[in-house]
Amino acid sequence: MKNITLLGATGSIGVQTLDVIEAHPEQFRLFAISFGENVEKALPIIKKFRPEWIVVKNDQVKQHLNSFLSGNHNIIAGETALEEISTHHKTDVVVNAVMGSVGLKATLSAIEQRKQVAIANKETLVTAGHLVMNKAKEHQVNLLPIDSEHSAIFQALNGESRQQIEKIILTASGGSFRDKSRDELKNVTVEDALNHPNWSMGAKITIDSATMMNKGLEVIEAHWLFNIPYEKIEVIQHKESIIHSMVEFVDYSVIAQLGTPDMRVPIQYALTYPERMKLPQSEHLDLAKISKLHFKEMDFSRFPCLKYAYEAGKTGGTMPAVLNAANEVAVELFLKGKINFLEIEHLVAKMLENHDVITNPDLETIQSIDKETRMKARNISGSL
Amino acid sequence: MKNITLLGATGSIGVQTLDVIEAHPEQFRLFAISFGENVEKALPIIKKFRPEWIVVKNDQVKQHLNSFLSGNHNIIAGETALEEISTHHKTDVVVNAVMGSVGLKATLSAIEQRKQVAIANKETLVTAGHLVMNKAKEHQVNLLPIDSEHSAIFQALNGESRQQIEKIILTASGGSFRDKSRDELKNVTVEDALNHPNWSMGAKITIDSATMMNKGLEVIEAHWLFNIPYEKIEVIQHKESIIHSMVEFVDYSVIAQLGTPDMRVPIQYALTYPERMKLPQSEHLDLAKISKLHFKEMDFSRFPCLKYAYEAGKTGGTMPAVLNAANEVAVELFLKGKINFLEIEHLVAKMLENHDVITNPDLETIQSIDKETRMKARNISGSL
Repeated sequence: MKNITLLGATGSIGVQTLDVIEAHPEQFRLFAISFGENVEKALPIIKKFRPEWIVVKNDQVKQHLNSFLSGNHNIIAGETALEEISTHHKTDVVVNAVMGSVGLKATLSAIEQRKQVAIANKETLVTAGHLVMNKAKEHQVNLLPIDSEHSAIFQALNGESRQQIEKIILTASGGSFRDKSRDELKNVTVEDALNHPNWSMGAKITIDSATMMNKGLEVIEAHWLFNIPYEKIEVIQHKESIIHSMVEFVDYSVIAQLGTPDMRVPIQYALTYPERMKLPQSEHLDLAKISKLHFKEMDFSRFPCLKYAYEAGKTGGTMPAVLNAANEVAVELFLKGKINFLEIEHLVAKMLENHDVITNPDLETIQSIDKETRMKARNISGSL
Repeated sequence: MKNITLLGATGSIGVQTLDVIEAHPEQFRLFAISFGENVEKALPIIKKFRPEWIVVKNDQVKQHLNSFLSGNHNIIAGETALEEISTHHKTDVVVNAVMGSVGLKATLSAIEQRKQVAIANKETLVTAGHLVMNKAKEHQVNLLPIDSEHSAIFQALNGESRQQIEKIILTASGGSFRDKSRDELKNVTVEDALNHPNWSMGAKITIDSATMMNKGLEVIEAHWLFNIPYEKIEVIQHKESIIHSMVEFVDYSVIAQLGTPDMRVPIQYALTYPERMKLPQSEHLDLAKISKLHFKEMDFSRFPCLKYAYEAGKTGGTMPAVLNAANEVAVELFLKGKINFLEIEHLVAKMLENHDVITNPDLETIQSIDKETRMKARNISGSL
């Protein structure tokens, strides 16, 4: 029986992680959860799974939550509380599925305590990949990727030597606007953008798919997770999202992981690794029914955010943190109707241009650059 | 440095194995070869690689070969000679790339001597899978498959538990006549049949691709190699031959091996396993250039030979040997213009219908059934 500590229980990945836990009551137990403010969504989770610990954003949320609960519940608030449940001696696996950079410290602490860490949170590796991977190496912890692309690569590398990788090939669906020209992008709405053709995901990541920033962040993550230079990471457009990613080896043999688009497969794999388990709610891949898989070269001028991500990744230091923070602000402003779709990439580009990179930053530096970038991005967003 | 003993050096797989050996002079040395009668093709091989031992079909071929060679060459003739070179103490790896059932005894003997055995020869596993696999298990020898489909499965299973296989999915190009109806098959010529769309192979296997018997034999091989019931082996039509085969696991995750159609990749993998090596002459897979991959459900009524193979496999015992022998005769007669294309399947069906299966046959039984079937098949071929 593995005790799972789930950071970000009410988000899209969080909820699907709960599906997996529920499907295997003999293997997994929800030991602790965290969520931000969504008390309404958290209540049925708490009643159903009865986690020993509940972490919320602040005291106000704690009071609000308490007003709905009877009986004894350990509710704690604040960022250090995330570290407490992640390093708790009863925690076996930490699933980091929070949004933004809030889970970073908890992840580093969990690694120090040699917990099995499953990462669905992009910011952790994008902004602090060097710190996380050094710590993982130091404490000999295997980081288990949860998103479908990195899980695919992780699975393709099973039993293989990482020295024999020729390149990593990430697949990209192209997002909601893949069939639109740059000209047509000028007037797209938030609603259009949120309508992803293959995956049902949160709003932020759905917009990131449309700008291809999502794939850019994944390129940076892949660089860190698999210790691969950017020159050996390729992105290919594959609109069906059936091949979740591939690894080419030195003998030109390519190993790919395929499946129906169902996040519960990579989530479960991270929890059961190195074993696999029956996944009752999921579906067989039926290639004959799908009939065709399409592939297309990635057009960097159509998707400049992907280019920015490669550049920020290659520059390294604090640059990926700026990329990430600027993008988070830009997407938020777009979702609120304050900037238009193409201004997302303009805002990101401006912030990258104006940043003086700091090499090999520590956690404090990353966090202060993150804050600074967010402030600056909000300031200049009116004058794009 | 591995000493390679190559059975069937002048055939299609043999020649490509020599390409691989030549590409890695520091890893591989051609220790011994065998060939049947093709002295013309063997001479440049012998001059270039200077193998220590040369096995030929009979004394006549030996004399003929000797007349072209100067200096000292160890040339021996006959079937037991195959066993001698396969079990020679200097042999590290035996590549069984002979046609037909002639390599069976040599393979069994090599396993007994715990040699690394790479199998390109279908008959070995189709007719005597139970004997070969029992021996491999007894002597803890890993059989390394050389054809692209089984190599793909073998690679997909890297680092995975065989208990967690949900099913094996073999891909089939459909062969030369995949776009023809059954009606159009009545009048196809040998020349048409030999024009395979993707792979450049020997005549026998190219015809077997067109009848889908090739895939049927591969189903039986997969059953033995991976110890999987026939119910868990599926065949899917995939005309580009880019996905070489797949494994679905219990969590519905599918691992596939892909590549350009180049037999040297699986050949080299069998020689370098578990490592991989640069393959200088081969090419990167370029999915964007290929653009589309197609998949189609297998139509058993269009390809009855595939159905016969499943049935013979499930019946077991001597039935697969009859399937194989009848098919070899039928293809030979078709290639000689003695029967037409559709009569290949008729002849096979008749032989299967008329056979009283012997369960758990030993090597002698298999070989006598093989001979008997060939004789009978020739006899009835005039009255199809």
